[in-house]
Amino acid sequence: MSFNTFGHLFRVTTWGESHGPALGATVDGCPPGVPVTVDALQVWLDKRKPGQNKYTTQRREDDAVRILSGVFEGVSTGTPIQLMIENTDQRSKDYGDIAASFRPGHADITYHQKYGLRDYRGGGRSSARETAARVAAGGVARAALAALVPGLTITGYIVQMGADAIDRDRFDAGQIGENPFWCPDATAASRWAETLDDLRKSHNSVGAIIEVVASGVPAGLGAPVYAKLDSDLAAAMMSINAVKGVEIGDGMAVAALTGVDNADEIRMGNDGPLYLSNHAGGILGGISTGQDVVVRFAVKPTSSILTPRRTITMAGEERELITKGRHDPCVGIRAVPVGEAMMACVILDHLLLDRGQTGGARGQIG
Amino acid sequence: MSFNTFGHLFRVTTWGESHGPALGATVDGCPPGVPVTVDALQVWLDKRKPGQNKYTTQRREDDAVRILSGVFEGVSTGTPIQLMIENTDQRSKDYGDIAASFRPGHADITYHQKYGLRDYRGGGRSSARETAARVAAGGVARAALAALVPGLTITGYIVQMGADAIDRDRFDAGQIGENPFWCPDATAASRWAETLDDLRKSHNSVGAIIEVVASGVPAGLGAPVYAKLDSDLAAAMMSINAVKGVEIGDGMAVAALTGVDNADEIRMGNDGPLYLSNHAGGILGGISTGQDVVVRFAVKPTSSILTPRRTITMAGEERELITKGRHDPCVGIRAVPVGEAMMACVILDHLLLDRGQTGGARGQIG
Amino acid sequence: MSFNTFGHLFRVTTWGESHGPALGATVDGCPPGVPVTVDALQVWLDKRKPGQNKYTTQRREDDAVRILSGVFEGVSTGTPIQLMIENTDQRSKDYGDIAASFRPGHADITYHQKYGLRDYRGGGRSSARETAARVAAGGVARAALAALVPGLTITGYIVQMGADAIDRDRFDAGQIGENPFWCPDATAASRWAETLDDLRKSHNSVGAIIEVVASGVPAGLGAPVYAKLDSDLAAAMMSINAVKGVEIGDGMAVAALTGVDNADEIRMGNDGPLYLSNHAGGILGGISTGQDVVVRFAVKPTSSILTPRRTITMAGEERELITKGRHDPCVGIRAVPVGEAMMACVILDHLLLDRGQTGGARGQIG
Amino acid sequence: MSFNTFGHLFRVTTWGESHGPALGATVDGCPPGVPVTVDALQVWLDKRKPGQNKYTTQRREDDAVRILSGVFEGVSTGTPIQLMIENTDQRSKDYGDIAASFRPGHADITYHQKYGLRDYRGGGRSSARETAARVAAGGVARAALAALVPGLTITGYIVQMGADAIDRDRFDAGQIGENPFWCPDATAASRWAETLDDLRKSHNSVGAIIEVVASGVPAGLGAPVYAKLDSDLAAAMMSINAVKGVEIGDGMAVAALTGVDNADEIRMGNDGPLYLSNHAGGILGGISTGQDVVVRFAVKPTSSILTPRRTITMAGEERELITKGRHDPCVGIRAVPVGEAMMACVILDHLLLDRGQTGGARGQIG
Repeated sequence: MSFNTFGHLFRVTTWGESHGPALGATVDGCPPGVPVTVDALQVWLDKRKPGQNKYTTQRREDDAVRILSGVFEGVSTGTPIQLMIENTDQRSKDYGDIAASFRPGHADITYHQKYGLRDYRGGGRSSARETAARVAAGGVARAALAALVPGLTITGYIVQMGADAIDRDRFDAGQIGENPFWCPDATAASRWAETLDDLRKSHNSVGAIIEVVASGVPAGLGAPVYAKLDSDLAAAMMSINAVKGVEIGDGMAVAALTGVDNADEIRMGNDGPLYLSNHAGGILGGISTGQDVVVRFAVKPTSSILTPRRTITMAGEERELITKGRHDPCVGIRAVPVGEAMMACVILDHLLLDRGQTGGARGQIG
Repeated sequence: MSFNTFGHLFRVTTWGESHGPALGATVDGCPPGVPVTVDALQVWLDKRKPGQNKYTTQRREDDAVRILSGVFEGVSTGTPIQLMIENTDQRSKDYGDIAASFRPGHADITYHQKYGLRDYRGGGRSSARETAARVAAGGVARAALAALVPGLTITGYIVQMGADAIDRDRFDAGQIGENPFWCPDATAASRWAETLDDLRKSHNSVGAIIEVVASGVPAGLGAPVYAKLDSDLAAAMMSINAVKGVEIGDGMAVAALTGVDNADEIRMGNDGPLYLSNHAGGILGGISTGQDVVVRFAVKPTSSILTPRRTITMAGEERELITKGRHDPCVGIRAVPVGEAMMACVILDHLLLDRGQTGGARGQIG
Repeated sequence: MSFNTFGHLFRVTTWGESHGPALGATVDGCPPGVPVTVDALQVWLDKRKPGQNKYTTQRREDDAVRILSGVFEGVSTGTPIQLMIENTDQRSKDYGDIAASFRPGHADITYHQKYGLRDYRGGGRSSARETAARVAAGGVARAALAALVPGLTITGYIVQMGADAIDRDRFDAGQIGENPFWCPDATAASRWAETLDDLRKSHNSVGAIIEVVASGVPAGLGAPVYAKLDSDLAAAMMSINAVKGVEIGDGMAVAALTGVDNADEIRMGNDGPLYLSNHAGGILGGISTGQDVVVRFAVKPTSSILTPRRTITMAGEERELITKGRHDPCVGIRAVPVGEAMMACVILDHLLLDRGQTGGARGQIG
Repeated sequence: MSFNTFGHLFRVTTWGESHGPALGATVDGCPPGVPVTVDALQVWLDKRKPGQNKYTTQRREDDAVRILSGVFEGVSTGTPIQLMIENTDQRSKDYGDIAASFRPGHADITYHQKYGLRDYRGGGRSSARETAARVAAGGVARAALAALVPGLTITGYIVQMGADAIDRDRFDAGQIGENPFWCPDATAASRWAETLDDLRKSHNSVGAIIEVVASGVPAGLGAPVYAKLDSDLAAAMMSINAVKGVEIGDGMAVAALTGVDNADEIRMGNDGPLYLSNHAGGILGGISTGQDVVVRFAVKPTSSILTPRRTITMAGEERELITKGRHDPCVGIRAVPVGEAMMACVILDHLLLDRGQTGGARGQIG
């Protein structure tokens, strides 16, 4: 990870500000011969794009992606793929009043302190709009994974909104696309709809926890001890706007487990090792086990709210600030495809890295 | 982060196995002119070294560090500092029975699968013994921070062992060094002593949550959007053996907060911005605010336990395994100085990086 | 250097193919507050752009650069600067006949072998057209250098075309912009005009040697032992299309010198050390001395010529190939601004790196 | 390349000073399963070690390498390999007089300026003694190449000493090991012996040009456009002490060629493309062609000579300096195994990188 680039061999550099002419991703290291089309990428961008239902910002962006390089006759050539998304609904006047004040919970003040100046239009580079570029890059990663590891799937969903978690016994993957919250528990989704309606009326917002699962990941991915699969996943998820916690497998709850309970015992299956549980989230010693890779991350409540909060101006004056504009009551919702994209990028990156480092060695078992 | 190296400008490469002749860290990028002495480094290594009380492994290692390069007449020269720790108490016969079997919860099986072979002596490279090298490198980072940012402090402690958390109202920093658990709550420390005694008797182990706080960190550190301060901290902590979750500030609990509650409101103090709370853990948009930087991570229970667990052998045979040897009932205890070391390395790294990238720009406030 | 990115803290990623919709550079790490304007960048692009005189390719490209991000109110913000140049005169039909054959001296065959497929239109990614993106990025580097190191200049020129070198006694910097060859020796420029006219008539081409000098570079830049200033300059220049040799100072000729002759003796001037000669090209031990940094590189003759050359097709058939199209008789001419751009990027990068690593330490002399 | 580390997937970090307790290399990314033994590494170190004949420094160092990690039961495990060489004959008193003065042609003054202080004992980190660590690392690279690419060979030799070049018609590979100069032309070797005897008597030294050839390199290695094979080789060779120029294939002489002459024409052989010449040095567009990879570099004359040269002291006083000690009259001689080591590291690195990036794609021909 280096400033605006992440990845070892599959390297994504994002660029662009919320209210500049465009934003995008320079994707370097996609293997050659992978089918990459605008249509396939657009599916993922549409999943993230604003204004799709009443629970996300009403900013209208088509988020239409263009492929400017690296693809010839429908397939990747191995050279950098430039993905560009033009900003069309910038309405920067909405944001004019924050030029002089720092919105609490936002990066306004830290960008000002770090750089000595900032693009105050809609948060500039610190806007969650940057994640559109990640989703586009994730689309390329998914295409490459589809070509290299048939059967691998990556699925994200919300498991908790506010203090209200799903009931794991009601988990139904088929429900995920059927409600505006990517929620696998239909009952919880109904409750959340009410919660968000209430919060909007009270000029408030709420946080969420997103879970992303990758199934079909080969054993052996991850590069100890500083490019472990979990370490890279933690960095990837924590780099998403508003994320404050990342868990692998049982996550923070492992503290309360004993060694006897936490052991993922192993039996021998027809095709190799079979684990009797997955507390480890599919990663041991920073290397994938072949089980589901399970990551969760917590997104804080949207900081832009219509309730006045105390803050200061650049001149050092104290004041109260309401952040007008078109904001998501729960930014966690649109973080779901972003988390999926980061998972796809990290898994692909480690697949390539492992191929380079070990040639896909793989000790025999049985 | 790249395999066995982490950091952008302060770059630490660790090397060595549990039962090889030695292990160590190659520390590149320490600024010149920093006083670096064996005595100062040894203080931190002694904090981590095994066998210090009955709650940590009884393996006897002096963990005596040698400085082989990069220091001349007591100060760093700006060239790589090689820190070497010889392994003296290897007793590899203790571990001989795990050559053919994979210990559940350990990286034995994934190293075998990834590399096609493995150094099975005590976990080889995947052993927590590797963290001794991190602590040595962290000592160099602390020395550099002391020279560059007077008053900056880094303090780690355990806030939860098993399901038993400290009472924040009893938090007393003065207690941290007064018990074997680096516990700031004397009452909790007493309870934990009992818990661990019981676990040992029942051949079991337990997890823990460690919190590390850096005070006096200047505002402006962190390099969005992929080398954010929190992203790098998450990677650093998740790379420590047995860690399954990382939190910044309120961490996973932010999901349950509303935007009104989560806002860290700002007032104007004599020396700059004053925050009325620190839900964000001192980081906004991936950049330090000047408040305390607060990180927590969860360590899973020691996987090496005397209770038999089901597993398989390299030959694919099913069996039950007891991991004999001299193991920590709670590896979280010795993870405290490791977490501190990682915090020191990351903060120093970002201090240098910020100096390079922005020259320490810093917008005026007031 | 990592695939399509170069630089440590000033990181340039170029993207785009000769005949795709656009190409460009993602410039990450430009310090904040640097004036960056399209007009200033365009000056350098115009110096490189094709079709300016009869000695360069007649392909017509405006090479108009757009700034898509990272600049706000006329100055850099510290976030990635995206520079895009649209391809307007693609005429890909000119190149259609090379889809099946490998042009000798070109990368057609190696791209095919490496990637298994290739964008055959005009060389795709391997086209020298990629250097337009470098020149744009170099313009940003020059702007940052102007802000950070007043008085620093970077000047490139041709010192040899074919076997015909300039006479150093006739060196007149004022002549460089007065002829189509960036030649500092007016007499040589006249001879070269004749040479190129003759070569064109005989369907041939010729190589050249370019020298780039940076004056006013502070002492102390360069990061031994693997990011030495000369090592990074060598990589940068060798990465330019068609370059086969790089020299620092006396270059390959040092082999013939004795130690007595080669020593750059030092005297004490009013403002510090004064060197009596500059065989070292301003670099000792990989670190700048404060003297002129002098780099030379040799560019091979244009491989695309109208004289038939023997080659093979993808099907393995032998044939003779004439490369039609609009080619430079001496690609070395347009390599001059590219070499300048690479010098600017490397010097800026090391200025930032040194600031980060040492804080600009600098031992006193006298 | 990053300070004291080079390589993408095969990453070598060297550490250590001329007169510290030890120096070495941390080698990360060696594929697992490669036989690595002290005996095999020692062969290469012995080739470089001082005091072997009257033409190299009489400093006595065994240069005995120890393997401290990363190798288990005689083969690499995929974890970092630590190679340590202790300094035994330090005699630092020989160098005491240079603590206050800057030796012309040495890095004394630039290290002082960059870092504000320096280890003045024998040049400290800037000493050519650092190259022993490179040779050790190169030995690991050679072992891995032997395992992965049977038949690949890497051979270095001197082609010019002072102004006196070998006669290519007398080139006899069998002669290379038969004289103290690694010279393939026996007649030239005799002349050089006389030259060096004379230079020693006159308290002088001389430069040299080394050529390194890798045969059997697969087509397809190199990662355009900034990790081209030639770009990485240029950086690698230029990073060696005293090197001032690097050439690939015809090198600087390409300037004098015409396009007709420079074209390496291609015919179809039984096993793929056959080239009729190798002006390109086995690299097109930064990617290997399958031909011999040919690199040359020029080493300046030893700066440490017994003839007094003018210089200044740290206090800014002017004086004349004789560099006493045990110096090589031509450091180029011992640069031969160093150049070979760098070639081995770069080739292996690109083999792994290509495997990761493209999976060894490789378009069919014929």
